[in-house]
Amino acid sequence: MSNILETINSPADVKKLSIAELTELAEEIRARLIVGVAKTGGHIGPNLGVVELTLAMHYVFDTPTDSFVFDVSHQAYVHKLLTGREKLFHTIRQPGGLNGFMLRTESEHDSYGAGHAGTALSAALGMAVGRDMAGGKEHIVALAGDAAFTNGISFEALNNIAAQTKRLIVVLNDNAWSIDKNVGAIAEYFHKIVTNPTVSSLHDKAADLLERFGGKTARHVVRKAEEAAKGLIGPGMLFEEFGLSYFGPLDGHNLPLLIETFKYLKQQNRPVVLHAITQKGRGFQPAIEKQKKFHGLGPYDAQTGETKAAGQKTYSEIFAESLTKLAAANDKVVAITAAMPNGTALDLFRPHHPKRYFDVGIAEEHAVIFAAGMATKGYKPFCAIYSTFLQRAFDQIVHDVCLQNLPVVFCMDRGGLSGDDGPTHHGLFDISYLRSVPNLIHMVPKDEDELSDMMYTAMLHDGPSAIRYPRGTGPGTPVKESPTAIEIGKAEVIRDGADIAIFGLGAMLPEAERLAEMLKREGFSAAVINPRFAKPVDRECVAEFGRRCGLVITLEDHVLAGGFGSAVMETLNELELQVPVVRVGWPDAFIEHGKVESLREKYGLTAEAALERSRPYLNKMMDQVLAKHS
Amino acid sequence: MSNILETINSPADVKKLSIAELTELAEEIRARLIVGVAKTGGHIGPNLGVVELTLAMHYVFDTPTDSFVFDVSHQAYVHKLLTGREKLFHTIRQPGGLNGFMLRTESEHDSYGAGHAGTALSAALGMAVGRDMAGGKEHIVALAGDAAFTNGISFEALNNIAAQTKRLIVVLNDNAWSIDKNVGAIAEYFHKIVTNPTVSSLHDKAADLLERFGGKTARHVVRKAEEAAKGLIGPGMLFEEFGLSYFGPLDGHNLPLLIETFKYLKQQNRPVVLHAITQKGRGFQPAIEKQKKFHGLGPYDAQTGETKAAGQKTYSEIFAESLTKLAAANDKVVAITAAMPNGTALDLFRPHHPKRYFDVGIAEEHAVIFAAGMATKGYKPFCAIYSTFLQRAFDQIVHDVCLQNLPVVFCMDRGGLSGDDGPTHHGLFDISYLRSVPNLIHMVPKDEDELSDMMYTAMLHDGPSAIRYPRGTGPGTPVKESPTAIEIGKAEVIRDGADIAIFGLGAMLPEAERLAEMLKREGFSAAVINPRFAKPVDRECVAEFGRRCGLVITLEDHVLAGGFGSAVMETLNELELQVPVVRVGWPDAFIEHGKVESLREKYGLTAEAALERSRPYLNKMMDQVLAKHS
Repeated sequence: MSNILETINSPADVKKLSIAELTELAEEIRARLIVGVAKTGGHIGPNLGVVELTLAMHYVFDTPTDSFVFDVSHQAYVHKLLTGREKLFHTIRQPGGLNGFMLRTESEHDSYGAGHAGTALSAALGMAVGRDMAGGKEHIVALAGDAAFTNGISFEALNNIAAQTKRLIVVLNDNAWSIDKNVGAIAEYFHKIVTNPTVSSLHDKAADLLERFGGKTARHVVRKAEEAAKGLIGPGMLFEEFGLSYFGPLDGHNLPLLIETFKYLKQQNRPVVLHAITQKGRGFQPAIEKQKKFHGLGPYDAQTGETKAAGQKTYSEIFAESLTKLAAANDKVVAITAAMPNGTALDLFRPHHPKRYFDVGIAEEHAVIFAAGMATKGYKPFCAIYSTFLQRAFDQIVHDVCLQNLPVVFCMDRGGLSGDDGPTHHGLFDISYLRSVPNLIHMVPKDEDELSDMMYTAMLHDGPSAIRYPRGTGPGTPVKESPTAIEIGKAEVIRDGADIAIFGLGAMLPEAERLAEMLKREGFSAAVINPRFAKPVDRECVAEFGRRCGLVITLEDHVLAGGFGSAVMETLNELELQVPVVRVGWPDAFIEHGKVESLREKYGLTAEAALERSRPYLNKMMDQVLAKHS
Repeated sequence: MSNILETINSPADVKKLSIAELTELAEEIRARLIVGVAKTGGHIGPNLGVVELTLAMHYVFDTPTDSFVFDVSHQAYVHKLLTGREKLFHTIRQPGGLNGFMLRTESEHDSYGAGHAGTALSAALGMAVGRDMAGGKEHIVALAGDAAFTNGISFEALNNIAAQTKRLIVVLNDNAWSIDKNVGAIAEYFHKIVTNPTVSSLHDKAADLLERFGGKTARHVVRKAEEAAKGLIGPGMLFEEFGLSYFGPLDGHNLPLLIETFKYLKQQNRPVVLHAITQKGRGFQPAIEKQKKFHGLGPYDAQTGETKAAGQKTYSEIFAESLTKLAAANDKVVAITAAMPNGTALDLFRPHHPKRYFDVGIAEEHAVIFAAGMATKGYKPFCAIYSTFLQRAFDQIVHDVCLQNLPVVFCMDRGGLSGDDGPTHHGLFDISYLRSVPNLIHMVPKDEDELSDMMYTAMLHDGPSAIRYPRGTGPGTPVKESPTAIEIGKAEVIRDGADIAIFGLGAMLPEAERLAEMLKREGFSAAVINPRFAKPVDRECVAEFGRRCGLVITLEDHVLAGGFGSAVMETLNELELQVPVVRVGWPDAFIEHGKVESLREKYGLTAEAALERSRPYLNKMMDQVLAKHS
């Protein structure tokens, strides 16, 4: 099958091919992507869309001397196949295998990593300026989807490009989709470029006038005026306003055209933007028909595109269903997503309350301020943003929401290790960056039903709050018909105990319970506490167990630095209690991609590891405990 | 003098005035601003620029029913004077007095607070959508300077406005300045609108053709084509592309024109933008001549504009001088500011290394990614961004810089309480939000010379680092001719001691020394440590004193939650040391504006308060200490 692809060991091999061979290679790559990703899962749709673009780029430019900066970089599979990683492609997103995004440490051809949107133009400009200062000749090519232009950073970069370099190539990969259908004025603008009504309408009007008034003079004048106008209102007006020369729109699947155009752009001494129209999922009918589903997904059938029937509901789905119910009972409840209606499951909310659903684009900062604005008008905005993406809006959480004490609710999906997406997507910092912010409440549910209760609690609370919940499914606890409000800052004692107190936050509660059992077998009476609140920490509960117990153990799916365990220590410190604490969580390092369970094992986020870590204290306690219980 | 102003108790009183009286009032307000701010200090330039705009807005609209959202809101003094706060205006920025920005808790007329740029359009859109959903009729008016459009959030908002509301009034207050002169394509774009070359050139060309070819027909055709073109390429093209109807540019000091225009805009059923050209500092010659200086400053002479001769160098100046020296010795050193060359003092660096100086606009996110891009090309970017504004780039610090372990240096000016600017400007969270990020080093100098050493250390370090230093001056330590590298993670023992260890971070070191003296008088031997690193904490040092001492005291100009004291506790915890810790720092609340010294006293960030807090432990220790020393 893959006769040509197997011969490609580096981009140099791409350059040896004829156009006919390149075209064949494109089809081989498509086949490889469809079959390969069917097994591993991954971003199949976006990659099928950029096969020819990537081929043409590697045909014309020379990485790693030249640099490609891919926005989000989930569309880098083709690039990986062409840069010496074809043999490893079956390992993509698998433990120990290739990362699903560009990664500088993975290959010298990956000049810039990403996972969050909107960064490519800024990074590429930094490289271009560095190149200029060093007197380099290499090319910097940024590839960004149309959705990246709903993010403000792209505009901040556009504002700087023309002033700072004369050589930068921006490729606008326009498939009219981000993950969901694009929203807002920019999406319309790109659409308008493609359909080009202004230019044609002006042309028609002028032609009409010519008909009516005739004459060579008039014809000449009109043509002149039309040309002048065309240059000014032409398709790339927006980019031209920012000082970039615009080329396009052109067919992003036409290899010879792309190659010729890149060769031309390479010679330009001005920043340029190439507008390529591509089809997401091209070559795989199921992905074309269901663009949302095939943006990124788990394993599927390579023939039919079918995926395993959904089993247990995910936390995201529970969130969306709960919010739908809350909104039915309270007309002040509104939902906000930053271009992730599918990922956050708000697409389940939308049909029930279409007028209270807001997709603002990949614009987390705007989303949070917009929510704050709505809150000043008496609304209860629920912002559903992944933990890692909410990092984008940290300042707005501080400055707009918490400082003004507005009742905005942050529903942080993917809170905790996100698994195979890797370090750009792990949500491991939200307790640290949020618990220093005054006025904010930070909740972590132990299961689906508690998520629903916490959302209800957040709705009733007259101030800002955040709820983090993990990717995927929980323990499967049925959600009550009507939610119950939880007392703010009140932990739940799952099982009482005299010697040791184990605080198992959210997804770590089952490990806390396992640990308690293990301790029991060793003769210790261990209490298990569901903290519920990373902030405020339940002071009474900590006081009671801090006084009673000889050891406190905290477990969290979060970094240890400044995390929940640290918050418990601060509380003990304020209570002037000297009980020893063993904190279990992620270390001070970026965690690679992989299966959640095996990574937890590797980094010691298990009951076994906690027991091991507690051993020195247990040994000391043994005598006392034996005395106490005998 | 202020005959009319004194009669204005609310916006209702403004509406009673004739145009002549309004014009007189404008002059009274200017006089009041110039004389008042001369005593208090504050943002005099921006406020002198919006006198007529604010008057016209209050003449036409009805706050608090209608809402004004001011971007940054440092230009809200006139608004404060007109909304019942004239009698308190002399207290602005003074302890217990009016805040220098909009503040929801200060007045019902302050519908939305701010202090960071670029938020107005998003907040106003949130309000407008809330109003629409509730079926309200009130008006929402956002006032944003041209500089706000160098920030990506404004574009994220623009992308959403037309799709989400039909009634929103955006006032573009264009004075061609942010704090410094604006940069980038947007600034040029606004300039182009004002000078309007495209439209006039098209007009000239057409007229020229007419001359040559003559005839009524041609004239008609040209006029038609020109009109068509004008509508498309007209001044507001950019806004029109985003679906807002553009009005302007008009003279922002022409009261009758502004009033008429606002009356018209009020009736529109489409989002609109009014482009008003204003003069920063209008009416006060020194402020017109020195726009940068008079953007915001301390007290000055109301006649001459003179300020007290600069005395001791500020930390900002030491930073700029040190960077200038580093750059002279190392051609890979570059400086990046987000529109704050004056505030960060990088304007002192610029003349020495103009090609290695980058002002990217109010675009902190872009600044950080741009720096990361340059770092991939071997450069050592120093990003000088205030601690509070760097909150904007938290995700980029995580995702672009630290995850890729790139050697970008964050120089966080205004780290710690910023005093009279108030809660939007205090830099009290940077240790908490940064120390959870892997790979990042966080340094805090005790004095000017150590700042210089830390910058040198950061330059040599092959990874990301941050340095925080306070607003204003330090202890005045002379800076060595050549800086010395500091061992990463190595604290400095200032004075040794046996009973108590006091860690005095950065600006709190003098308090630590005072505290040691106070403890000495009580019979305790207290060590004083300059921690230097908030991350990594010096483990050996903490181990040594943790084992030796009966009490550890930490002092930091930072919130306690997740702060430096918490980091010391984590270190003790990892070392399995049970020594009690007293942590002194800012509480879990937003701190109001005021004098740094008095706020420190109020919130217990003094040696006295630390002693008081330590009392229970000291009492317990007394016997042991007496025994040990006898």
